[in-house]
Amino acid sequence: MGWNGWDCYGTTVTEAEVLANARFLAEHLLPTGWDTVVVDIAWYDPTARAHGYNAGAPLALDAHGRQLPAENRFPSAAGGHGFRPLADALHALDLRFGVHVMRGIPRLAVERDLPVHGTTWTARDAADTSSTCAWNPDNYGLDHDHPAAQAYLDGQVAQLAGWGVDLVKVDDMLAPYHSRAIEAWATAIERSGRDIVLSLSPGTHLSTAHLDHLRGRAQMWRISDDLWDRWEDVHAQLTRLARWAPHQRPGAWADADMLPLGRIGIRAERGEDRQSRLTPDEQRTLLTLWVMARSPLMMGGDLPTSDPATVALLANPAVGHVLRTGQDGRELLREDLGDGELVVWSAHAPTTRTRYVAVFWTGSAPRRHALPLASVVGHPPAPATWTVRDLWDLGERPVPHATCPADDDLDLDLPPHGVRWLALDAG
Amino acid sequence: MGWNGWDCYGTTVTEAEVLANARFLAEHLLPTGWDTVVVDIAWYDPTARAHGYNAGAPLALDAHGRQLPAENRFPSAAGGHGFRPLADALHALDLRFGVHVMRGIPRLAVERDLPVHGTTWTARDAADTSSTCAWNPDNYGLDHDHPAAQAYLDGQVAQLAGWGVDLVKVDDMLAPYHSRAIEAWATAIERSGRDIVLSLSPGTHLSTAHLDHLRGRAQMWRISDDLWDRWEDVHAQLTRLARWAPHQRPGAWADADMLPLGRIGIRAERGEDRQSRLTPDEQRTLLTLWVMARSPLMMGGDLPTSDPATVALLANPAVGHVLRTGQDGRELLREDLGDGELVVWSAHAPTTRTRYVAVFWTGSAPRRHALPLASVVGHPPAPATWTVRDLWDLGERPVPHATCPADDDLDLDLPPHGVRWLALDAG
Amino acid sequence: MGWNGWDCYGTTVTEAEVLANARFLAEHLLPTGWDTVVVDIAWYDPTARAHGYNAGAPLALDAHGRQLPAENRFPSAAGGHGFRPLADALHALDLRFGVHVMRGIPRLAVERDLPVHGTTWTARDAADTSSTCAWNPDNYGLDHDHPAAQAYLDGQVAQLAGWGVDLVKVDDMLAPYHSRAIEAWATAIERSGRDIVLSLSPGTHLSTAHLDHLRGRAQMWRISDDLWDRWEDVHAQLTRLARWAPHQRPGAWADADMLPLGRIGIRAERGEDRQSRLTPDEQRTLLTLWVMARSPLMMGGDLPTSDPATVALLANPAVGHVLRTGQDGRELLREDLGDGELVVWSAHAPTTRTRYVAVFWTGSAPRRHALPLASVVGHPPAPATWTVRDLWDLGERPVPHATCPADDDLDLDLPPHGVRWLALDAG
Amino acid sequence: MGWNGWDCYGTTVTEAEVLANARFLAEHLLPTGWDTVVVDIAWYDPTARAHGYNAGAPLALDAHGRQLPAENRFPSAAGGHGFRPLADALHALDLRFGVHVMRGIPRLAVERDLPVHGTTWTARDAADTSSTCAWNPDNYGLDHDHPAAQAYLDGQVAQLAGWGVDLVKVDDMLAPYHSRAIEAWATAIERSGRDIVLSLSPGTHLSTAHLDHLRGRAQMWRISDDLWDRWEDVHAQLTRLARWAPHQRPGAWADADMLPLGRIGIRAERGEDRQSRLTPDEQRTLLTLWVMARSPLMMGGDLPTSDPATVALLANPAVGHVLRTGQDGRELLREDLGDGELVVWSAHAPTTRTRYVAVFWTGSAPRRHALPLASVVGHPPAPATWTVRDLWDLGERPVPHATCPADDDLDLDLPPHGVRWLALDAG
Repeated sequence: MGWNGWDCYGTTVTEAEVLANARFLAEHLLPTGWDTVVVDIAWYDPTARAHGYNAGAPLALDAHGRQLPAENRFPSAAGGHGFRPLADALHALDLRFGVHVMRGIPRLAVERDLPVHGTTWTARDAADTSSTCAWNPDNYGLDHDHPAAQAYLDGQVAQLAGWGVDLVKVDDMLAPYHSRAIEAWATAIERSGRDIVLSLSPGTHLSTAHLDHLRGRAQMWRISDDLWDRWEDVHAQLTRLARWAPHQRPGAWADADMLPLGRIGIRAERGEDRQSRLTPDEQRTLLTLWVMARSPLMMGGDLPTSDPATVALLANPAVGHVLRTGQDGRELLREDLGDGELVVWSAHAPTTRTRYVAVFWTGSAPRRHALPLASVVGHPPAPATWTVRDLWDLGERPVPHATCPADDDLDLDLPPHGVRWLALDAG
Repeated sequence: MGWNGWDCYGTTVTEAEVLANARFLAEHLLPTGWDTVVVDIAWYDPTARAHGYNAGAPLALDAHGRQLPAENRFPSAAGGHGFRPLADALHALDLRFGVHVMRGIPRLAVERDLPVHGTTWTARDAADTSSTCAWNPDNYGLDHDHPAAQAYLDGQVAQLAGWGVDLVKVDDMLAPYHSRAIEAWATAIERSGRDIVLSLSPGTHLSTAHLDHLRGRAQMWRISDDLWDRWEDVHAQLTRLARWAPHQRPGAWADADMLPLGRIGIRAERGEDRQSRLTPDEQRTLLTLWVMARSPLMMGGDLPTSDPATVALLANPAVGHVLRTGQDGRELLREDLGDGELVVWSAHAPTTRTRYVAVFWTGSAPRRHALPLASVVGHPPAPATWTVRDLWDLGERPVPHATCPADDDLDLDLPPHGVRWLALDAG
Repeated sequence: MGWNGWDCYGTTVTEAEVLANARFLAEHLLPTGWDTVVVDIAWYDPTARAHGYNAGAPLALDAHGRQLPAENRFPSAAGGHGFRPLADALHALDLRFGVHVMRGIPRLAVERDLPVHGTTWTARDAADTSSTCAWNPDNYGLDHDHPAAQAYLDGQVAQLAGWGVDLVKVDDMLAPYHSRAIEAWATAIERSGRDIVLSLSPGTHLSTAHLDHLRGRAQMWRISDDLWDRWEDVHAQLTRLARWAPHQRPGAWADADMLPLGRIGIRAERGEDRQSRLTPDEQRTLLTLWVMARSPLMMGGDLPTSDPATVALLANPAVGHVLRTGQDGRELLREDLGDGELVVWSAHAPTTRTRYVAVFWTGSAPRRHALPLASVVGHPPAPATWTVRDLWDLGERPVPHATCPADDDLDLDLPPHGVRWLALDAG
Repeated sequence: MGWNGWDCYGTTVTEAEVLANARFLAEHLLPTGWDTVVVDIAWYDPTARAHGYNAGAPLALDAHGRQLPAENRFPSAAGGHGFRPLADALHALDLRFGVHVMRGIPRLAVERDLPVHGTTWTARDAADTSSTCAWNPDNYGLDHDHPAAQAYLDGQVAQLAGWGVDLVKVDDMLAPYHSRAIEAWATAIERSGRDIVLSLSPGTHLSTAHLDHLRGRAQMWRISDDLWDRWEDVHAQLTRLARWAPHQRPGAWADADMLPLGRIGIRAERGEDRQSRLTPDEQRTLLTLWVMARSPLMMGGDLPTSDPATVALLANPAVGHVLRTGQDGRELLREDLGDGELVVWSAHAPTTRTRYVAVFWTGSAPRRHALPLASVVGHPPAPATWTVRDLWDLGERPVPHATCPADDDLDLDLPPHGVRWLALDAG
């Protein structure tokens, strides 16, 4: 759980903006479990701008072709300190620090043919100039048949580890699936001796057949292309998360992408400055689905300037609690009712006789639905009666029932593109 | 795997029609594993007709309110033999025999207040007249708080067992979910001492939360309402089977319903006499999906008058072989490509290094797609090269590749609403 | 987690003793999760005595053959109140109340041919006099082919539910396995409308093939014969729990029996008045194994007169915490080293990067052993370094390491018949 | 399934002996599935001898420090052909060919400082001279922090692939667990482009915590030290296989070691020339346990001179059939009965209603035991009656029952250290 500036600041985020968000996170959301701050792509590009990538940009590199923070955006990096001062500042707030990196090695390092750290090879030995990214011009891929490739990565991760980085989001890894690059990153992190979380992106058309390969090597992997504040993007995750959720386990998480909530698009890669176009109900659907499926949660909007209602959603204690303690989250039912789909998920708490239930409704008009409680909790030896709490109770709707016998129905009024998120307590 | 006359003859099938289909099955399809013949609803109604159910029909009942075959339709039942002669005829063909029964007890038995077999109670003790079926007027439900209910079922199953019935399809059980009735049927079958498969219908809005309750009690349960020869009906099963497939196991099968293939609607409950309106590609999609998900296969069309192309589909040895031996069938990928969805399933063979892959395409125009082989077979220690066979090769399309390295793509031309079904052999 | 008087008071426990233990539990152990009090066998026998069962005892029965508390031992039951006053007293302490019942129906009820509650049958209709218990003379089995059997159980459970009972321990159910009796008990509890935990005993030679049948019907089932304060009894559970632990899940627990700790044998069915003969290390082995395997914990000794060291073991917060929150507890390694067996178990916490490890040593002399940490935590993406805490740290031994790299060994001094129980925290 | 000369010829096997065994295998055992021939350790040592390893032996190496077959023992290797001619001969018999290799690089190559194939490094760059094997003096380990290490392995596997090797058994890998070496071997095999099975040895004290790491990289891994023809060695595998069996899956097998059956010790590393000292019952126990747990089967004795009874055991069609098609093999019960342990395993066939049951008895005297059939097959919906076949029926004992109702017992006479291995067919 954390914050990543991609949805609001795109490639252009500055140290001051990172720190402002970090302080907001530490003050308002850390108690609920939001504890990580990630600087996304192009922190090494002093010319980064909204709405696109720069070809041939004067990237900040060290003598070994490794990216350095652009000092015009990250002043504390001056004097060769890299991200160390920023990492220290975040750690002092009890936060963890993540950075983004593209697959491969900067083209600029190859052009300059810089030496690979700790070896007699150069960037040209390490690079595979035939391997490029379809959407970003910064890097070439690495030639994993040449030992210089691993040596370059070892050097890059050693630098990140030295700075105190806790998470690295490596991009252009899964579509197509770069198995050799994934293995090399896992090796480099292992060799660094630091516990760095490896997060892989993006996950366009990612098949569960890759699961065994991913599990041994990364901690998080995206399962879709970038998600924005469109209902269609949220809706499409229902199918993907239903397939991935049964495979979630500690240290090996399918990731449904950042949360485009609050104020986004300030200087983002696409779109205008705005409060998220997702309706409040769609936002609750998004958060509930991610939590029930145990996807990592990364807030994408600018926290200090987001509307209080959004921050209140994130600060809902149920979000952090169910994400961390919910077990066996899974889809139980998905049926097209003509004017929309009814989608039911459940999870259970590990230590008490409590079940969590999310009833999603994809229709564009409200609907009442009577859901047999047994279709959620099953049969004896399940308890015979349950007390019902509304986990999104924000004063708007009555709790559906004080108590409900297991052979009765939950009568639910379902909002458009919305969800009812309930906790059922035995007895 | 078997034949059920519902899709062609509805409530009206006769003994001659059953036997004609049975002989066809034994001759043409038994070698592929099609071995069961089921007489569906209303075999006890001498006035049964196409397109509807009869309220107040003069059902054939014995002195204890148990259904008897209508002798005008099943002549061999005359003389009190019930289904024994028909069962014997089917067993002589090495086929198994199934019958349909409605939940509960005939209203006619309650009106007549017939004695419950082996007890001093009567049908009125056993019945719960407030429990009715929404779509069929024959029966009342049973009052499972009164011991006469179990006694009635015990008597009914004892009669079916005495006739030699191998499978009983009990209807109106799952929507809503009648847990007490399911338990009572399981008990009655256990008490009968005969190995009778219990098949439950229909499965409208069936949640996987019922799985543990079903598994201990029934062998097959429907997971949808009735399926007909409409593409939408087939398409909707993709979502349901993706959820149920990981839970399939011997003796506990989620059932996606009968196959409305070949000649159907002759005197059916709905629709006109026709060859199935599913296109050949849709038919292959249907069969492949059922097989990969290991759903029971019940042919619904009239076999002797179905077109040879349909019979050829059913007789494809891959259908029976993969259904019986495929392991761990599951959805790997489902993505909307704009003009349709790409849906990839895999299964593996238990004893050899063979994988089965089904690539479904829901678009209404053909599409070429390059599918990375690794997204199906995973990574090392998976074999490095695979030989590809087309399991639906009916002379129409070339085998996509003689051999394919695991880091290459399968280039597939996908037909509209169609499937490419492949076997991959290691090396 | 709770207390059961069997190991200290056998068949003879009195209301005063129950309440004394309950108050002790509420005051000292409830914060750690010990919340249940169970009255074991023969509470209906006014002549109950240590060291044996009474044949032909004048059991306290109501007019329908259902057991009543013997008023000479449970004075609050006078005036037909049954266990209601005791249940109220326990509930007032925030405790749950359990009682023991034998399979079947009292022989005395059959001799008197008492009417079955709510029916026109009598005890003779319900009983199966050919079905007896090998070690206890109180009851006959029930004839589950006769509806009077279910009716008797329905009446018995209705009475327990009316008293406010939360758990019923039904004895003589699993050896041999009485499947019909288990089904009937599950049905009776379901019909009672009260959430009563069904606990089955004893589990001599219980096979995991019964798992599916048990799971749908009971919440706890013993997996061995009675366990006493002998090392051999504790040792034998290692093998059984290794087989059952992977199947543990909420509401469906394999039960390794009560904890014969503290002061036992005061008036027990066997043995003399004593503090448990298990050594302190054996006691820690017992508790740790039960917790790692997530077996229910029922303290068997008299709490007010047990030694403080025993109470301190039970009050160790790790006991309650790991029992309730540990996930995926399982045996990782079991090897005979010549002078004893090394047995390693692990579990993980659901929400943090914490692992629990138990290293058991069955030898009768101490031993040092260097256990590779990777053999417990696996490989990357597991964290590279771990901080080690001793969960049984009672001031006796140093923590083995402040921190341990994942590629190093844990150097452990293992006590005879003892355990080192560690928490490993990432980083 | 195959043959490995270790138990009979130790380090000394010759080409003629390999071929004699291969021809015997092809003629007598290939139909049952025995299809692999493995040349074990020291084929590159022209001075290899029984009962020990040679320090400082004049190993046959090529110019890059890679082992070559000793030509005095493998004449067809002359002229630089390596194992290619032997591989061709075996492939012509429809057999697969495996060879043994020690972890690391020959010390002799390091002494000579031979160049690493395809690089400018030498053996001294690749070697880690501080990493040695505790029991064999041939090799140093590799320094996996230096790229020469991977380059050396890549060259070695390229040579094996060029010869046509199908399986490589790499020794000294798991005790202690050499994770980096395992990863490097997996990488080298992947780069070779040939489907070579990676088999890891030995498995002394191997923990299941290594499972995820192994699964992605090797196909077989030993779970114990070497096994010889001693009852204690066989007995100790019961515990280990019970833990590993639930994790077996295609391409990822726990390996309980070779079968020391028939004539062994001819010129072995330890012991005298003999027919296996395991009794016929112990041999059946060994084979049955390996098959039920789906461990790889490698015959260790010299086939042409083994007694016919041993060959008949191996040729039992049930051995190959259940090994290849049995599903979900697992321990159901293990109980000490005072004079021995009763250990019950089950597996099921994938396509029919057949269960396999093995009832082991570890006592040293025969015993009769009545095993409730339900403790093996469970409860309804399991079939109500079963037909029983004896899979080791060699004319000695009557089949226990023609048919057995599910609520009855199997009355079994159990031989000392023996097993009854049954197939149960539904109905």
